[in-house]
Amino acid sequence: MSSPPCSSSLEKQMDIEKADEEIEPLSADNDLYGGVKVEMKEPMDSKIYALRLKASLSEWRQQGKKGVWIKLPSELVNLVEPTMKEGFRYHHAEADYLMLVRWLPKTIPDTLPGNASHTVGIGAFVMNAKKEVLVVQERSGQFRGKGVWKMPTGAVNQGEDFCMAAIREVKEETGIDTKFLQVLAFSQTHQTFFGKSDLFFVCVLQPLSFDIKKQESEVEAAQWMPIESYAAQPYNQRHESFKYVSEICLAKSRGEYNGFAPVSMKTSSGKTFYLYSSSRDFQQVTQF
Amino acid sequence: MSSPPCSSSLEKQMDIEKADEEIEPLSADNDLYGGVKVEMKEPMDSKIYALRLKASLSEWRQQGKKGVWIKLPSELVNLVEPTMKEGFRYHHAEADYLMLVRWLPKTIPDTLPGNASHTVGIGAFVMNAKKEVLVVQERSGQFRGKGVWKMPTGAVNQGEDFCMAAIREVKEETGIDTKFLQVLAFSQTHQTFFGKSDLFFVCVLQPLSFDIKKQESEVEAAQWMPIESYAAQPYNQRHESFKYVSEICLAKSRGEYNGFAPVSMKTSSGKTFYLYSSSRDFQQVTQF
Repeated sequence: MSSPPCSSSLEKQMDIEKADEEIEPLSADNDLYGGVKVEMKEPMDSKIYALRLKASLSEWRQQGKKGVWIKLPSELVNLVEPTMKEGFRYHHAEADYLMLVRWLPKTIPDTLPGNASHTVGIGAFVMNAKKEVLVVQERSGQFRGKGVWKMPTGAVNQGEDFCMAAIREVKEETGIDTKFLQVLAFSQTHQTFFGKSDLFFVCVLQPLSFDIKKQESEVEAAQWMPIESYAAQPYNQRHESFKYVSEICLAKSRGEYNGFAPVSMKTSSGKTFYLYSSSRDFQQVTQF
Repeated sequence: MSSPPCSSSLEKQMDIEKADEEIEPLSADNDLYGGVKVEMKEPMDSKIYALRLKASLSEWRQQGKKGVWIKLPSELVNLVEPTMKEGFRYHHAEADYLMLVRWLPKTIPDTLPGNASHTVGIGAFVMNAKKEVLVVQERSGQFRGKGVWKMPTGAVNQGEDFCMAAIREVKEETGIDTKFLQVLAFSQTHQTFFGKSDLFFVCVLQPLSFDIKKQESEVEAAQWMPIESYAAQPYNQRHESFKYVSEICLAKSRGEYNGFAPVSMKTSSGKTFYLYSSSRDFQQVTQF
């Protein structure tokens, strides 16, 4: 826990002066929006990096570049401070890297894209032929110890289709296999998590197995519960949105409600994705 | 651009040794999940911070704390490296701060929440009584110079209701005032932006004004276009998802399609939010 000895500081200083004579700009790729991207990979002394970054910025400014992106893997944390000292700001971070950005033009407004703004969650309405709903009591969170029987819910991962997340969460929490059918409703709320917004999709899934094997770590109890008893719980009656969703589920159980069903499509670049729309109105898809 | 002179290093070293005798843990608040949150605000020497962090970690470990969150405003970038050296990882970043996290227990699995995973966008289907659709040609992006007439589209901001974002984008791009009616369809795609996923909502809005005043910076041209001509464009016919959405819009224009309409609700903590569901099936809401 001591400062570097003076001799080492002097050696470093000599290295830097040597570097000063032959400063090489950082290696960068052009992006599609008139900017450049630097992806640092190899370790670099922070003072040498600072000099190279300064030289690069001067070059990019002359070339009329707009946004400058610098991606620093977490191992190169020593380069964060010199980057910020050159007028960069944080753009976003993941466990293994930090992305910094700087807008160079003084006369053109900043059109840099924003950071991810939303988390996404699902609730799974799973009903068997006896009109019993698959419900759980949770060990933690806002429902802990309240005795409320609720649908399995969970967070959708980055890169995960939420219809697949619903199947995964039901399996994890209760051991039940399901088939995704429709989105019944969804909500958007704000300031839910570190200032982010949240989209929550209530989905209906068809059970393909029936023997519950509950997850020990998160689930206190799990059961099949008559849908009327589920909807009649005091918690669901007292809370406006829970009551509303319960009534949608009841309407669905009577065959009186139609949601949005997914259709698999391809983007122009060939990636598969799901588009959700009203299946009854638009095409014949297996109904629940 | 030189290393600090040796005398200053020695003074700093003495400060640190003094600090060593009376190390004060960092000020922290407990969170609701058995962890602690540190929000650094005042500048601190990085070496003194490193000692205080080490002392704090030892204390939190003894107390059985789980997740440790450290929020560093961008001015305190000098504290990023010492935090990472104590085994923290990046959690997320915004322009003005970096959040780092460390999971302390060795025997309990990490249940730390993830970072925001999705961006959200909207497309606005606005049709007048003559069955003409409000369309634009864009100055930049994938449609630039292609002559494609498309719906106004845009990004939803963090904290913004997407039904309001649709009204805002139409106003910004075309000057037309609108009323939000329904979500007609939505899609989820992946790897769209820095590895994030995207949710895109196609919305129908009712025009409340009709004289177009286009945005100069982003919009090349804007007009009211007969819906059949809009749908018949080669681009919309060639691309599966554009064709599908065009057909939904045509069905809607004939009154043969029903989407999800928003209902305003309150959370248990009193925050207002929108829940979207099938209005025809579930309640009487003004129809388009």
